[in-house]
Amino acid sequence: MMRPQEMIAIKRDGGELSREQIEGFIDGVCDGSWADYQISAFLMAMFTRGLSEDEQNALTNAMLHSGDVLDLASIDLPKADKHSTGGVGDKTSLIIAPAVAACGVAVPMISGRGLGHTGGTLDKLESIPGYRINLSNDEFRSVLDKCGFAMTGQTDQIVPADKKLYALRDATATVPYIPLIVASIMSKKLAEGLDALILDVKTGSGAFMTNPDDAVYLARAMVRTGKEFGVRTQAIVSDMDQPLGRFVGNACEVFECLNILRGEDDERSADLKQLSVELSARMLILTGVEADIDIAKKRIEDAITIGAAYEKFEQNCYEQGGEKEFCRSPKQLLDSTLDEFIIRADKDGYVSTVDALAIGEAVVSIGGGRRLTEDSIDHGVGYSCEVKIGNEVRYGDVLGVLYCRGKDQAKSVSEKLNAAYRIDEQPTSKPELIKAVIDA
Amino acid sequence: MMRPQEMIAIKRDGGELSREQIEGFIDGVCDGSWADYQISAFLMAMFTRGLSEDEQNALTNAMLHSGDVLDLASIDLPKADKHSTGGVGDKTSLIIAPAVAACGVAVPMISGRGLGHTGGTLDKLESIPGYRINLSNDEFRSVLDKCGFAMTGQTDQIVPADKKLYALRDATATVPYIPLIVASIMSKKLAEGLDALILDVKTGSGAFMTNPDDAVYLARAMVRTGKEFGVRTQAIVSDMDQPLGRFVGNACEVFECLNILRGEDDERSADLKQLSVELSARMLILTGVEADIDIAKKRIEDAITIGAAYEKFEQNCYEQGGEKEFCRSPKQLLDSTLDEFIIRADKDGYVSTVDALAIGEAVVSIGGGRRLTEDSIDHGVGYSCEVKIGNEVRYGDVLGVLYCRGKDQAKSVSEKLNAAYRIDEQPTSKPELIKAVIDA
Repeated sequence: MMRPQEMIAIKRDGGELSREQIEGFIDGVCDGSWADYQISAFLMAMFTRGLSEDEQNALTNAMLHSGDVLDLASIDLPKADKHSTGGVGDKTSLIIAPAVAACGVAVPMISGRGLGHTGGTLDKLESIPGYRINLSNDEFRSVLDKCGFAMTGQTDQIVPADKKLYALRDATATVPYIPLIVASIMSKKLAEGLDALILDVKTGSGAFMTNPDDAVYLARAMVRTGKEFGVRTQAIVSDMDQPLGRFVGNACEVFECLNILRGEDDERSADLKQLSVELSARMLILTGVEADIDIAKKRIEDAITIGAAYEKFEQNCYEQGGEKEFCRSPKQLLDSTLDEFIIRADKDGYVSTVDALAIGEAVVSIGGGRRLTEDSIDHGVGYSCEVKIGNEVRYGDVLGVLYCRGKDQAKSVSEKLNAAYRIDEQPTSKPELIKAVIDA
Repeated sequence: MMRPQEMIAIKRDGGELSREQIEGFIDGVCDGSWADYQISAFLMAMFTRGLSEDEQNALTNAMLHSGDVLDLASIDLPKADKHSTGGVGDKTSLIIAPAVAACGVAVPMISGRGLGHTGGTLDKLESIPGYRINLSNDEFRSVLDKCGFAMTGQTDQIVPADKKLYALRDATATVPYIPLIVASIMSKKLAEGLDALILDVKTGSGAFMTNPDDAVYLARAMVRTGKEFGVRTQAIVSDMDQPLGRFVGNACEVFECLNILRGEDDERSADLKQLSVELSARMLILTGVEADIDIAKKRIEDAITIGAAYEKFEQNCYEQGGEKEFCRSPKQLLDSTLDEFIIRADKDGYVSTVDALAIGEAVVSIGGGRRLTEDSIDHGVGYSCEVKIGNEVRYGDVLGVLYCRGKDQAKSVSEKLNAAYRIDEQPTSKPELIKAVIDA
């Protein structure tokens, strides 16, 4: 057995590690024989010297097998999931999971909490009183079996190596390195026992990959990895320059999704619905349930229109302990005691910027997200994007509304929110929502 | 105040750190606000991305000021020290300190323990019953004042940052990087309050720098750093392909030094004496006590010949609690209960290799050194080099003698020791002991 120092020295000097050596590292991470300071030095050596594709696959594999892999053999449906790299107002999971389930594909979705300026599905779901996001593996399987999708947080049994590695990466500036990102994301998704996986890689000011080329590179790396592990995988690169849909926050985002599932169309949510349908349809294609993308999209749209997707959501909500009346009357999700602070246009023109990062950070800063892992969050606060890029506005028009607690909160972010908008004299076209589809 | 993650990210991406940032890092190391895993990720980023000369100086300075700097103003003599990068049989400190002190230069020597296959002055001194190597700053100053030199271990008050950094570097494969080596060595030496410093940078199989070019590079970096901090500094690069002098071990090395100090010349110790005189003479030059190197050498040789250096040693031994009779009758240092295991020539010829690394490792493995910091050592065991490179030998001649405890110890290293020698048919010249003198 090679000592940690010796293995670190190989990567430090730019050498290539064998599959066995990488397995030894992950074993050491899990059994404590590698100290935290050795792990973090090794991660930095990986970051600065690079990991080959073989090393990245070996790392993904070792992480995947560091814990349980879900056994969903008892569920006689194709299984698919969606993963997003995270954005502002990105709430497609809450639409995709019930819509895809309504079309006969099981969606075993293990989600995360908000990270930085981006939201997390678990935080959003917790806006529904009673909704449990800490299912055991048996409960998860049972919910999935009953209503076609289940949503839970990562347990200690699933990829335990990632929990430790991610915490160290976060503390040592070794997060933004693509092979480590790929291994972290894909090991967790592969542990779900999927047949197919669609990846939504965001790019733009509100995404972790601000540069589209980096997003394409990450998408390719994840698609290759999924295929390497026998999962039919595809990625789309989508726009995250402006928030997705109308709301940014927790309860208000669930409210927006329920409106869509209940067929209440809203121009401000059009991009959210478009992206959700696109991703859902691709899950039907990847699992072989449909062969043609346009037919698949139509089928998803129909599942929403006729209320089948909504029914799935309501059933899931009941199975996971949530109070169903919140689904039936989503307005209850909106806290009427909140203060409204309105951002207005300071001139006539066309909206050319709605800065997703600024809006995401503003919502986090008033309690809608966490600064530290241990922080609690305020599910009520949020922001409504009343206009989107390309819209024509006149002086004094409402650009957005901040739902906050008290004037001090409003004051603390008003400058940031005002600066999030740019209004040009010339018309601006809407950004292309789907920038690329990555098959390999 | 910049967070550790932000500072790590700068170096991770190859950026240059400011003096204030590096001071913030060392403050964080000392006050615990940087976690060990952050320190080690940062060290690896430094190792793989590099430190500029300004950064190296800033690091040295911050480390130096992480603790006390000795105030030797009360001692009205020029102060000089020698530092060696470590080797096998390298025991020059025990000759240099008393010889230089005998010539009117104070030598405040803070030494270390053995490291890897190399010995350490503190371990050697502890062979003398009663000798204390844990003097307080006041005791150290008092001994220095009374007998012109004092020898002690690093206290927690001197460069505390180095203790923590070195332990982490050792565990994370970040030791062999020259700017980190320079900062570690030089911060400790600069804390001694010196006027002059001579550096003995070893190269060869028994040195940490096996490649002479690396040794020259390290020597230059240390000399530049010393001068930058206002200390007259010079380095020599010396041979460490074969052990220095006759003995390798602890008590037996003190025995060898006392023999030299008592004027008992031995061909097998000739290189040790030559190097000690060379380094000592350069300390007289650097402090301005002598202006001509040949005169300085003569003065050191005379100090040895007339017994002045020996007297200094005996006085120091008394002041530091050691039993003086061991100086007067050094044979007592040799443990007569040890077993002797003899390595013999397997053919006629000329000795072309006496592998210092192999001999050093053999002595460590029978207890003469430590594998782990917490190991205790056997001061008695050791090895005597009966021939050196260039000597002519006949089949059956004694090449060396291992002083060990029992046949099993002998057996465990006999192959290694036999393989340490190479005998050629053609005569081989003695290696050049002093390979370079580095002034800048």
